[in-house]
Amino acid sequence: MRTVDVALGNRAYPIRIGEGLLADASLITPHLRTRRVAIVSNEIVAPLHLSALRAGLLAAGVDITEIILPDGESYKDWGTLNLIYDGLLAARCERSTTLIALGGGVIGDMVGFAAATYQRGVPFIQIPTTLLSQVDSSVGGKTAINHPLGKNMIGAFYQPKLVLADINSLQTLPLRELQAGLAEVIKYGFIRDLPFLDWLEDNLDALLARDPEALGYAVERSCLNKAEVVAADETEQGERALLNLGHTFGHAIETGLGFGVWLHGEAVAAGMVMAAELSARLGMIHSADVARVRRITERAGLPVQGPKLGAERYIELMRHDKKVEEGRLRLILLQAVGQGVIRDSAPLVDIAAAIDSCCA
Amino acid sequence: MRTVDVALGNRAYPIRIGEGLLADASLITPHLRTRRVAIVSNEIVAPLHLSALRAGLLAAGVDITEIILPDGESYKDWGTLNLIYDGLLAARCERSTTLIALGGGVIGDMVGFAAATYQRGVPFIQIPTTLLSQVDSSVGGKTAINHPLGKNMIGAFYQPKLVLADINSLQTLPLRELQAGLAEVIKYGFIRDLPFLDWLEDNLDALLARDPEALGYAVERSCLNKAEVVAADETEQGERALLNLGHTFGHAIETGLGFGVWLHGEAVAAGMVMAAELSARLGMIHSADVARVRRITERAGLPVQGPKLGAERYIELMRHDKKVEEGRLRLILLQAVGQGVIRDSAPLVDIAAAIDSCCA
Repeated sequence: MRTVDVALGNRAYPIRIGEGLLADASLITPHLRTRRVAIVSNEIVAPLHLSALRAGLLAAGVDITEIILPDGESYKDWGTLNLIYDGLLAARCERSTTLIALGGGVIGDMVGFAAATYQRGVPFIQIPTTLLSQVDSSVGGKTAINHPLGKNMIGAFYQPKLVLADINSLQTLPLRELQAGLAEVIKYGFIRDLPFLDWLEDNLDALLARDPEALGYAVERSCLNKAEVVAADETEQGERALLNLGHTFGHAIETGLGFGVWLHGEAVAAGMVMAAELSARLGMIHSADVARVRRITERAGLPVQGPKLGAERYIELMRHDKKVEEGRLRLILLQAVGQGVIRDSAPLVDIAAAIDSCCA
Repeated sequence: MRTVDVALGNRAYPIRIGEGLLADASLITPHLRTRRVAIVSNEIVAPLHLSALRAGLLAAGVDITEIILPDGESYKDWGTLNLIYDGLLAARCERSTTLIALGGGVIGDMVGFAAATYQRGVPFIQIPTTLLSQVDSSVGGKTAINHPLGKNMIGAFYQPKLVLADINSLQTLPLRELQAGLAEVIKYGFIRDLPFLDWLEDNLDALLARDPEALGYAVERSCLNKAEVVAADETEQGERALLNLGHTFGHAIETGLGFGVWLHGEAVAAGMVMAAELSARLGMIHSADVARVRRITERAGLPVQGPKLGAERYIELMRHDKKVEEGRLRLILLQAVGQGVIRDSAPLVDIAAAIDSCCA
């Protein structure tokens, strides 16, 4: 088992990474305040993984409430969040009850926000079952639901007590979702970890073949990168924004098409290519660097072009993003492969040109 | 002007108390991150106080978005909260925009929760315009909305940057609301400040006559008490629970009758009498002490009896309260006048008898 510690003072917590962790309740029970949990999962994940988790906890004498939600980004809204509150209240869950999020990024984000807000805050544990949630959304305490006018517009920073990344759960993941998760893995290479990018270029086939050793390493290295950034800047006042490479473009794609048409990782992948293209247009990197972004993105089975919404519509949607400061679009660009940078000075005409050149 | 400092480390903030503070933008601008605010108020308060606040801020060059909500506890729900989100998103308010809550406890609680969750947290300022919100709800960072199954069930701990308590706004407050606010003022005397209780017994008539000097002192002394408790226990792991004297009984009244039928302070007043009655039944205080609770409550024009819901219904509703721990009702009782105590061992039969003896 691999462990990555997220150093956040009195909100510090471990990420455990390995095969078969789901069934091992001894990893969970030290983090419970009382022997009472509410497991929140969805209709797709629950049949695959809930029974192993349940059996371990029951054997450890833990009382379990189960709340099963519909699956999909389109359900990451107030109505579904309310199903969690309803379930918790109907079961009379208390302030000491620990919420367990069993599922991908949507479940993790929603359960995290429910934990942040139910009775003004209850403990929670993340058990991410997708690659994307294992390497990104389950780590760092960002929780949220979507609003019709923007993705993740309603949320909170709220840290889990524990993250359990069971590599075995990636074996049953649809290929498209595995690929979407790789977008965030690749991102760490481009913004801050060139040796990892080199490793990814060498090991991409092993990852796509779901080699457990390669997956375990990729998850660990991604979490290490994310944990370092989050520990330095928990609430995204500065450096943490680097993690948003490709995200402002990507959010425009997700919102423009309607949540859930493209997977988050797919939108981020096309967004990364746009960010690289814009960086090259601004003279920050070479066209060969852009080609490197395109190549690994394409090899991972991810889109390198966005949908043809028109640059104006993209920019309008990007203006609704949370990364807007005093009316200026704050974007993450590359000043080298392996070195992201925050910029709010990119001219709109260049942003538009970069978008247009990356749409089909 | 009186100032009470809430000592919460990097979340510390001042409470300014005095006459005419609303119109003095120089008290507000040092606390803004950018010259942009969104003022949220309601249909009753806005016509009385918004123009003075607006004029001051405009003169100081501050850009203002205004969001006016319907008035009342029955609107403290998701639908109304969403009107705030909609307004903020429509005006493209950013992470650096400061939310200003102008109104009573409902406005303060909802705007605080909106600030805690809009884009995962934006700065906010409380301008409480009722006695209840000046002495209690605007201080300490508790924010929330109601859920059909329980009051304040969805919320967050989130501190304001500044609280401005303009004593002049109490001159236009309906008498019933002034009296309801006195319930929380009196509470501080009973749980931890006997000299203040003596002062209140001497000055109750001046308070009811809205003498500005008496009101200013009562607000300051109440805020000092609350600030001390909150600084010692921000997220209610222990001592802060003392502030809930009368509240678990009171919440049962509010939920049982439907939110908004009784004012919060009225329900707390009857709840304090029930808590005192229960304390006497358990041999913790004398019947003369209960009589003292009843007498000042009655003199303040507040109810000393709860609605006849039946003790069973009360207890069922109380079990839904947030103050339940491992199935046990955690109540605030009195071990002396001026000394509250947290107890989870009161027998149900005594709780029921205390309730029955205080209902008509």
